[in-house]
Amino acid sequence: METHVFPLLSSFLSIIFLATSKASDLHIPHQIHLLRPQSGAHGRDVPGLSCLSWRLSVETHNLMGWKTVPQQCENYVGHYMLGKQYRDDSKAVINEALLYAQSLKVAGDGKEIWVFDIDETTLSNLPHFAKHGFGTEPYNATTFNEWVMEGKGLALPETLKLYQKVLSLGIKIVFLTGRTEDQRSVTATNLKKVGFHTWEKLILKGPSYTGKTAVAYKSNERKRFEKNGYRIIGNIGDQWSDILGTNTGNRTFKLPDPIYYVS
Amino acid sequence: METHVFPLLSSFLSIIFLATSKASDLHIPHQIHLLRPQSGAHGRDVPGLSCLSWRLSVETHNLMGWKTVPQQCENYVGHYMLGKQYRDDSKAVINEALLYAQSLKVAGDGKEIWVFDIDETTLSNLPHFAKHGFGTEPYNATTFNEWVMEGKGLALPETLKLYQKVLSLGIKIVFLTGRTEDQRSVTATNLKKVGFHTWEKLILKGPSYTGKTAVAYKSNERKRFEKNGYRIIGNIGDQWSDILGTNTGNRTFKLPDPIYYVS
Repeated sequence: METHVFPLLSSFLSIIFLATSKASDLHIPHQIHLLRPQSGAHGRDVPGLSCLSWRLSVETHNLMGWKTVPQQCENYVGHYMLGKQYRDDSKAVINEALLYAQSLKVAGDGKEIWVFDIDETTLSNLPHFAKHGFGTEPYNATTFNEWVMEGKGLALPETLKLYQKVLSLGIKIVFLTGRTEDQRSVTATNLKKVGFHTWEKLILKGPSYTGKTAVAYKSNERKRFEKNGYRIIGNIGDQWSDILGTNTGNRTFKLPDPIYYVS
Repeated sequence: METHVFPLLSSFLSIIFLATSKASDLHIPHQIHLLRPQSGAHGRDVPGLSCLSWRLSVETHNLMGWKTVPQQCENYVGHYMLGKQYRDDSKAVINEALLYAQSLKVAGDGKEIWVFDIDETTLSNLPHFAKHGFGTEPYNATTFNEWVMEGKGLALPETLKLYQKVLSLGIKIVFLTGRTEDQRSVTATNLKKVGFHTWEKLILKGPSYTGKTAVAYKSNERKRFEKNGYRIIGNIGDQWSDILGTNTGNRTFKLPDPIYYVS
């Protein structure tokens, strides 16, 4: 059944991501509400758990090291990701990043960089996760890597705006991703296809980092840049592990991601 | 008019804070809904701004140094604070803190401390802010200090649970607050009156810190503890300035506060 559902879902997601019209203007039969907290007057009660509170805990990093989205929050997270609120929340983050970028006095010496994570920061894997329970299924490296190798990641439209702004200011782009070296070519192609045409460096996780945490890997790679005379002006990711550790940059931004957690 | 409204509001808030029954069971005429996002199918659109996204930006520290709640979010923030969602969000944070506390192997050498901020962490000033636009009015030190000197802060019930748990484990309590030394007596009395009966130390902001940021003041005070051989096992506050800086402790927890920002 999945193979039948998928093309439809994919088109649907393309519409959500590419259309400039509001999601609420579209006729989407199964999308009864866009973000209805599962607690409070309008919501269905989840005994002992508010999915909205769970998500806030995740985003504020009060909740760490979680493995899967709680089963009873699958609908909630699905509606959140497919609806207007995910886009709005991303927009609020990018608005701050744009204000920050605009306020900068750029030296323009070619040594200023802005670090972008890739998955759920630059490229969206939502079509994949929509097929796999929106984070309620345990992470499966095999199916996820199969999806990555298809090169069908969608541009996150708010991040694309920031990317263009940063480029226009003369700040260099560095992509720093947990994707592995064998995914370099498909990743580069995917990035270009959806609008991220250029970068100073695309750093993928080499074999020397196998078994290391994302915090350790990304901190070390950022440190290497700083040792080479680069200055990290900004740093944006969907995971706390993108923006914690050392050499985090002058300012960090945390995009929403209630689907998975990377240590 | 305020003097007439205030006793009523105060009783109402006491009910919210002290009653174990759900807020939704109470007959509160002006509380039509508990937390209705001002975007999406159920919400009233705020042009260019989702108050839910604004709050998420605040809580994730993407938005820094803000002065007031956006005017159009007064109702949203008011409903959030008076409704079930604020309590639920606090509960989600405290649940994580309780799990963490329970997992600890406590040495019991009297050198283990848990740092609690006071305002909007231990004591709620909601009756004051409800009278002053829920953060939409610029911070007014005179009226706020008048409220503090009344000693009518309410216990934040989730934090009280954590306080009791931490005490029961043999970890010492340290209160570290931006309130000033002249407010020591009223603060101590207020804490005891609402259930926070004991502590190792209550640290208020001395004159030497005038003009210093909360991050600088609190970092320095925490450092003094560590120099004296104490170990900061946990650290909880409603502001990012409570948990950023140096000597932040083994683990930090961020309670919700969409009403004000302290640098």
